[in-house]
Amino acid sequence: MTATVPSAARRPESPGDSPSLRIARSALATSGHLADLDAFHDWFTDCGRRFAMEVGVVPLDALRGWRTDPATGDLRHESGRFYTVTGLEVHTPGAPVSRWRQPILDQPEVGVLGILAKEFDGVLHFLMQAKNEPGNPGGLQLSPTVQATRSNFTRVHGGSRVPYLDHFLDSSRHQVLADVRQSEQGAWFYRKRNRNMVVLVTEDVETLDGFCWLTLGQLHRLLAVDDLVNMDARTVLSCLPFAAAGLSDLHGGPAPDPFTAALVRSCEPGATDRQETRELLNWLSGFRSGREDRVLPVPLRDVDRWRVTDGRIVHEDGAFFSVMGVTVSAAGREVRSWSQPLIEPCDQGVCAFLVRQREGVLHLLVQAKAQPGFVDTAELAPTVQCTPSNYDVLPPGARPPYLAEVLSARPDQIRFDTVLAEEGGRFFRARNRYVVVETDEDHDTPRDGYRWVTMAQLSELLCHSHYLNVEARSLVACLHALSAGLRPDLETAFRH
Amino acid sequence: MTATVPSAARRPESPGDSPSLRIARSALATSGHLADLDAFHDWFTDCGRRFAMEVGVVPLDALRGWRTDPATGDLRHESGRFYTVTGLEVHTPGAPVSRWRQPILDQPEVGVLGILAKEFDGVLHFLMQAKNEPGNPGGLQLSPTVQATRSNFTRVHGGSRVPYLDHFLDSSRHQVLADVRQSEQGAWFYRKRNRNMVVLVTEDVETLDGFCWLTLGQLHRLLAVDDLVNMDARTVLSCLPFAAAGLSDLHGGPAPDPFTAALVRSCEPGATDRQETRELLNWLSGFRSGREDRVLPVPLRDVDRWRVTDGRIVHEDGAFFSVMGVTVSAAGREVRSWSQPLIEPCDQGVCAFLVRQREGVLHLLVQAKAQPGFVDTAELAPTVQCTPSNYDVLPPGARPPYLAEVLSARPDQIRFDTVLAEEGGRFFRARNRYVVVETDEDHDTPRDGYRWVTMAQLSELLCHSHYLNVEARSLVACLHALSAGLRPDLETAFRH
Repeated sequence: MTATVPSAARRPESPGDSPSLRIARSALATSGHLADLDAFHDWFTDCGRRFAMEVGVVPLDALRGWRTDPATGDLRHESGRFYTVTGLEVHTPGAPVSRWRQPILDQPEVGVLGILAKEFDGVLHFLMQAKNEPGNPGGLQLSPTVQATRSNFTRVHGGSRVPYLDHFLDSSRHQVLADVRQSEQGAWFYRKRNRNMVVLVTEDVETLDGFCWLTLGQLHRLLAVDDLVNMDARTVLSCLPFAAAGLSDLHGGPAPDPFTAALVRSCEPGATDRQETRELLNWLSGFRSGREDRVLPVPLRDVDRWRVTDGRIVHEDGAFFSVMGVTVSAAGREVRSWSQPLIEPCDQGVCAFLVRQREGVLHLLVQAKAQPGFVDTAELAPTVQCTPSNYDVLPPGARPPYLAEVLSARPDQIRFDTVLAEEGGRFFRARNRYVVVETDEDHDTPRDGYRWVTMAQLSELLCHSHYLNVEARSLVACLHALSAGLRPDLETAFRH
Repeated sequence: MTATVPSAARRPESPGDSPSLRIARSALATSGHLADLDAFHDWFTDCGRRFAMEVGVVPLDALRGWRTDPATGDLRHESGRFYTVTGLEVHTPGAPVSRWRQPILDQPEVGVLGILAKEFDGVLHFLMQAKNEPGNPGGLQLSPTVQATRSNFTRVHGGSRVPYLDHFLDSSRHQVLADVRQSEQGAWFYRKRNRNMVVLVTEDVETLDGFCWLTLGQLHRLLAVDDLVNMDARTVLSCLPFAAAGLSDLHGGPAPDPFTAALVRSCEPGATDRQETRELLNWLSGFRSGREDRVLPVPLRDVDRWRVTDGRIVHEDGAFFSVMGVTVSAAGREVRSWSQPLIEPCDQGVCAFLVRQREGVLHLLVQAKAQPGFVDTAELAPTVQCTPSNYDVLPPGARPPYLAEVLSARPDQIRFDTVLAEEGGRFFRARNRYVVVETDEDHDTPRDGYRWVTMAQLSELLCHSHYLNVEARSLVACLHALSAGLRPDLETAFRH
C-alpha cells in the first residue's frame, strides 16, 4: 500500500505531538524504564559477562572462508557476499598529494541500522542492544536495535534471524521518524551506505535478552562515556528529526547557561532559514562542481607502496592503516565463530567542531571534505577530522587547518570530549577523540571550503543522503546530547 | 566570503517578496519586456536566419579530433576532455532483462546550465538564448542564458569566452534562486550531472545579440510549442522554487477551472507535508536499499551485441539507439566548426505523468526508476518513460505499466501534449512526446514502485540532487506551465 493520503484527510501534527517535540521531551528525561544510569550499568556489566567474545589476530592468508582472487589479488569471501578488500586509485588535482593508491573495503549492499522507539508513560524510549564486535576496543558497546548487513538478513551466513528486523523492512504499520541512507568512512569504504532508520511503534514489543529501553536523556549521558555508544547508534541518533520551532519554550524553567540556550536556539529553524539553506546548498554545489577528482577501482595487487608483511597489508611508511585478520568466537550471536579481515588504523584520530555563539545562536564550522569513497565527491565534515600522526609522512602543507586551535584549546573552551570507537565489525580498535571546542564570536572569516552553519540546517540536510559524513554525524549526536545541559565536568559520575 | 550571517541580522523574507511569489507573479505575466509572443517569434525567426548551422553525418572513424583507444575501443577526444563513448555492463537481478552491455557517454565533469533572472517593471524576467546544437531536430531552440561544459569554460576548445558565465561562477553578489546538480539521461550518460542554476541580479545586464528577456508566463506558453524550449532550459525551470503557501490567493480573481485550481493547490505545501515527505523518503529509501543492481564500466570493444556498421555503432536488433558522427559548421558560436559523436535513438519516446484530483489537490503518479547511469541507483521518473518500439525486441513482461492507459487517453483527459527534444549537443534528433493525462480520482492503488505525490513535494526534492530524473523534471516544468491556466486547446495561436 503506497498511496499518499491527501492532506485534508490526515490529522495535522499538533505542536504537542510533533515528533521533534516528543524527541526533545525524551532528551530532558534522565529517568524512565530504567530508573537511573546505575541500573543501566548493572545491566550492561551483566551482559558483558554473558556475551563474551574471543578475538585472535591471524594472518590474512589464514582467514577461514576468505580467498585471494588469483587475477586481482582482491580478498573476498567465498560466498561472494559480505565485503571485498580491493584497491582504489585516487586523483585529486591541486592537493598536496595529488595521486595515490590504497586498499579499500567494497561492500555494495545497503544494510539496516535501525532503532525502535516507543512511548512509556508519555516519554519516548529507544531500544538499544548490548552488542559485541571483534574490532571493539573494550568489548561490548551500546548499539542500535538492529544492525544488519543485507548478507545478514538474506541469511548468507546461515545464522539465526535478526531480531526486530521486520519492523524496519516492513515499516508500513508504524510511524517512521527517520529513514535515510548515509555514507560511512570515506577513507576506508568504497561507496558504502547504510540505511539509518528510527521507527516509532505503538504495539507491544518483547524486550529480548541483551536489549533495553532508554530515554534520549539517558542515551545522551552515555554518549559522554568513552567507547560506550557505538558508531551505528551515533549515526542513527543524528538522523532523528530533532530540529523544531518551540524548543526554547519546552526547555523553559530556570534559564540554562548561555551555551546551552544558544545550542537549543541553533536547533530551531529561523525565519530566514529557507534563503540560508539555499545559500548553503549553493556553496556546497560550487565546491563539488569545481572538483576534478577521479576515483578508479584497481586490483588490490596493483596498489603500489602497500605490501603484505607479517600476514597484514601495510603502507611502506607504516602510516595510515593496515588490513589485518581476526578469528572470532562469540556467545550470544547468531553465528558462533568466524574469521574476517578488518582495517586497523595506525593511531587515534581527532574529530572536532569549532563552535561559536553569534547573537545567541550556536554556529558550527563545517568543512566540505572530499574523500575517495564517497558516492558524491564531498560531504560536510567536522572542522577537523584527521589522524595527526599521519601528517608526519606527508608534505608540511598537508597539515589540516584549525588542528592546532583544537589541540591547544583551554579547558573552559571544551564543551564535549570523549573517545569513541568506529564500527567494530570492520575496523579494529579504531578510535577517535570527539571534541567540541567553543571559540570567540569574532572568530576569523572561515577559509575556503569551511562555513558556519546551525544545527537546524544540518538536521534538515540529514533527511537526505550525501550531505554529512559519519564523523560529522557522530559529532551532531554529541552536540545534541549537550542540549539538555550535559557538561563533561558534571558527568564524571556516569563514567565507568 | 563564506560566513553565514546569523538569522537576527537578516531581513526576513516578507510574503510579498519571497522568491516563490515573485515567480508566481511572473508566471501570470504574458506581456513584459517583449510585448507579446508575436514579437518573440519575429526575433526568434530572425536569429534562425543569422545563426545557421550546417550539420553533416559522417562515419565515426572520420571524426576530426576524435580517436579510438587501441586498448579499449573507447572513442575519445584527443584533448582527453569533453566526453568519451565507452561501455557499461548492467546487472539488474529479477528484471525481465537481467544483464546487458551497452555503449554509454562518460563525461565526468560538471557543467553549468544557468538562467539569469532580473526584474523589469516589478516582474521577473528570464534571459534566454536562441541556440543551435547539431542534434536539434529543427535548428534553433530556446536555451538557458548559459549552457557550458567545464571544458567550455576552462577553454579546452580554444573558443571565445562564454557570455554571462561569471554571474554563475561567482554568484556571491547575487541572490541564488536555485543551484543543484541534476542528473541527465540515465540510459545514455554515465553519472552525468550538470549544475542547474537560477541567479537573480539587480544590476544592469547588457542584452547580447541572440538573447532575450521573457516572463515566466511567456516561457510557459512557449513550452507548449513542439521542439522549441530545449531540455536544458526545461530542467533549470523545474528547479525554480515555485512551491509556496499563498499561491491560491495570488491567483485569486475569477475562479480558474477545477484542474488549474487543483494544480495551484498542489504547489502549496500542506500542513502535514513534513510527515508526508518523511513517508515519501521512507518509500524511496526502501526501494533503493532493496535493489542489488550492479553497473560496471567495460571497454567499448567488449560490448557484445553491438557492432560498427556503416560508420556507426548499432545494436544487432537495430533497436534502442546508435552512436553516430556529425561534422558541424556554425555561425554565431564560439567555435566555427567541429566534429563529434552523438547518440541517435531509434524512435520517438513517450514521457507521461498520470495525474488526478483528490480532494481539490492535484497528485502526480511518479515511479522509482533505476537507470544504469544514475549516481544513486534510482530516481523518480514519470509514470511512463519509454520508447514503445524498443519493447518489440524484449520479452512481453517488459512492457511498461500504464503505457496502454496513456496511449489510449481520451482528448479531454490530455492536459499537456507536446513533442520536445533532448539535448542536441549529445543526442541526434532525440524527441519525446511529453504528456500529462488526467485520470479518475479513484484510480487503482498504484503498483509497487509507483506513488502519488504533490507538486510541492517534488519541488522540495528538487532542491537536492539524485531525486528527479531529467524526464520528470521536463514534465514538472510543463505542469508548472499549466498553473496559469494554459490549455493546449487554447494555445494553438502560439504554435509556429
